[in-house]
Amino acid sequence: MVQSLKIEIERSTAKKEKPPQDQLGFGIHFTDHMFIIDYAEDKGWHQPRIVPYQPIVLDPAAKVFHYGQTIFEGLKAYRTENGRILLFRPRKNIQRLNRSNERLSVPQLEEGIALDALQQLITVDEDWIPTEPGTSLYIRPFVIATQPALGVSPSTHYQFIIIMSPVGAYYTEGVNPVKIFVESEYVRAVTGGVGEAKTAGNYAAGLKAQEGAKDKGYSQVLWLDGVHRKYIEEVGSMNVFFKINGTVHTPALNGSILAGITRDSIIQLLKHWNIPVEERIISIEELYEAGKNGSLEEAFGTGTAAVISPIGELNWRAEKLVIRDGQTGELSRKLYETLTGIQTGTIPDPFDWMVEVR
Amino acid sequence: MVQSLKIEIERSTAKKEKPPQDQLGFGIHFTDHMFIIDYAEDKGWHQPRIVPYQPIVLDPAAKVFHYGQTIFEGLKAYRTENGRILLFRPRKNIQRLNRSNERLSVPQLEEGIALDALQQLITVDEDWIPTEPGTSLYIRPFVIATQPALGVSPSTHYQFIIIMSPVGAYYTEGVNPVKIFVESEYVRAVTGGVGEAKTAGNYAAGLKAQEGAKDKGYSQVLWLDGVHRKYIEEVGSMNVFFKINGTVHTPALNGSILAGITRDSIIQLLKHWNIPVEERIISIEELYEAGKNGSLEEAFGTGTAAVISPIGELNWRAEKLVIRDGQTGELSRKLYETLTGIQTGTIPDPFDWMVEVR
Repeated sequence: MVQSLKIEIERSTAKKEKPPQDQLGFGIHFTDHMFIIDYAEDKGWHQPRIVPYQPIVLDPAAKVFHYGQTIFEGLKAYRTENGRILLFRPRKNIQRLNRSNERLSVPQLEEGIALDALQQLITVDEDWIPTEPGTSLYIRPFVIATQPALGVSPSTHYQFIIIMSPVGAYYTEGVNPVKIFVESEYVRAVTGGVGEAKTAGNYAAGLKAQEGAKDKGYSQVLWLDGVHRKYIEEVGSMNVFFKINGTVHTPALNGSILAGITRDSIIQLLKHWNIPVEERIISIEELYEAGKNGSLEEAFGTGTAAVISPIGELNWRAEKLVIRDGQTGELSRKLYETLTGIQTGTIPDPFDWMVEVR
Repeated sequence: MVQSLKIEIERSTAKKEKPPQDQLGFGIHFTDHMFIIDYAEDKGWHQPRIVPYQPIVLDPAAKVFHYGQTIFEGLKAYRTENGRILLFRPRKNIQRLNRSNERLSVPQLEEGIALDALQQLITVDEDWIPTEPGTSLYIRPFVIATQPALGVSPSTHYQFIIIMSPVGAYYTEGVNPVKIFVESEYVRAVTGGVGEAKTAGNYAAGLKAQEGAKDKGYSQVLWLDGVHRKYIEEVGSMNVFFKINGTVHTPALNGSILAGITRDSIIQLLKHWNIPVEERIISIEELYEAGKNGSLEEAFGTGTAAVISPIGELNWRAEKLVIRDGQTGELSRKLYETLTGIQTGTIPDPFDWMVEVR
């Protein structure tokens, strides 16, 4: 039973200097330690260890460099006012990691060992969890294929690694609405592809469109489906929601959309509040129509990094659609405050989402 | 001018033992040296060097592990009977590398420096070029994003690396026809995506279908387009050709198909021989129809690793189509012998494809 494996801990002798909490940025600074566990076809997952944060040393023929077998996750730990450490729905991340693993032909990771690794690593580096409002400890578990061989086939060897970074707000604009460019040329993913998996290739595929949007003065792109080029999928690396005539709509999970954990939490919160919410196919034409006839009340992206990111303007084929005069909507604000409140322990958690470390 | 940069050479002191030429496999053994050049936003490509084959040392936050910005190429060097060293159309690989770089927001690499690097590295390790029929020195240039930062944006730092591997035949079946499974569930790429780029994510996306085909007794999958799921794109990691009624047909480059250099060479050879060749949209229905009415004369895949791989059987939605009684066709054989003859210098090269090293 993998769950009973003991994690060896090698403590760092020289502690790094911690950056000021108002200059954290996102994913730039890393804590003193990292978790590693190896996989070999004949041994399974073995030798779990916490070691000082250090470089990864790989043969140049390691499959991750050539054939992209790599999966990642992202979640956050929060320090509450009374000093507790809370994780937001970590099992969901491990379960999604395993679904991504399945799609990319990577062996499954036992949920217990991954959760144990998360908890022990956070405990070792707990003085890295920032305390200022909006800050948190971002946790990045990832798997890489390490077999040094150029044949195109699943790797026989892997590493599962966890690194952690104290972070400020993801978007420098904060919770202010962002401007989004509706992408018509490039496609992020298609049904039958790997859009549902949290794998590197999906992000590489999106960079060029993202750069194009930035050049035009937009924060992110809104992705349309790869087949009809008209149904809304995601916005940047977030899921997306629209409040139309009092009902909240979000694209249904169709195989090419990432099953966001924040997305799932928002849906549960809305149902809890008796606000109607529908997961369905939404076309960009329909959205523009709702925007023009005044029934589009709010739009926002959801994700671990930003939590809620209100959308103030869309641009589709050079036609601009300003949403709510570019101001943050009431529901967006309430969702942001409630979810971050639950995450940081200032608001009760009726869903039993938070997992306390230790 | 990058082209004038001098490549520093650090020679390996301990030479590795060379594997027997009948046990080379593909991409398992690597030569004594590798080429590396670094890129930094403020310096451009700099410090080109040939060093002993050694591990790559990267921060665990390096972007290649998380967001998949990585490109590769594959080409071969051959030792002729009279001892010359020939490269097959290397400029084409460098040009395609740069087209892939452009799609993945990776900076362009100067053609001269890449070609110079190839030639110098091959010269340093020239005693690694195998001489037995069917063998060659496989060369794997690749780019990886090295910036240690978790924000989703193009990396500010990269490495371009070349490693080399003496190889035998790619397919253990040799030039005997292979059985191919027509994939109906999974999709490799879609127009607007990165299918045309030689990037890791495309290969990761194909592994699951490939494993499924293997489990059913097939060597590779034949990919259909991601939109209509009926037009033929590629076979495994090769381009594909069909001889129907005396004319050779291959899917037209549409943005989601890799622009194979072997593909281009086959088209030129066919034109040179006055055999009609058409690049166009080909549906799987049409192909099956041709197979049933007897007009499908030959089918084969093309790629650097296998050169020509005849197809003896297809399986689409449980319907089997045996091609040419499962035997290698005359044209497939002639193309294989001609192309490998040109590559190894036993047949004149009317196209000026081969580049001599030194």
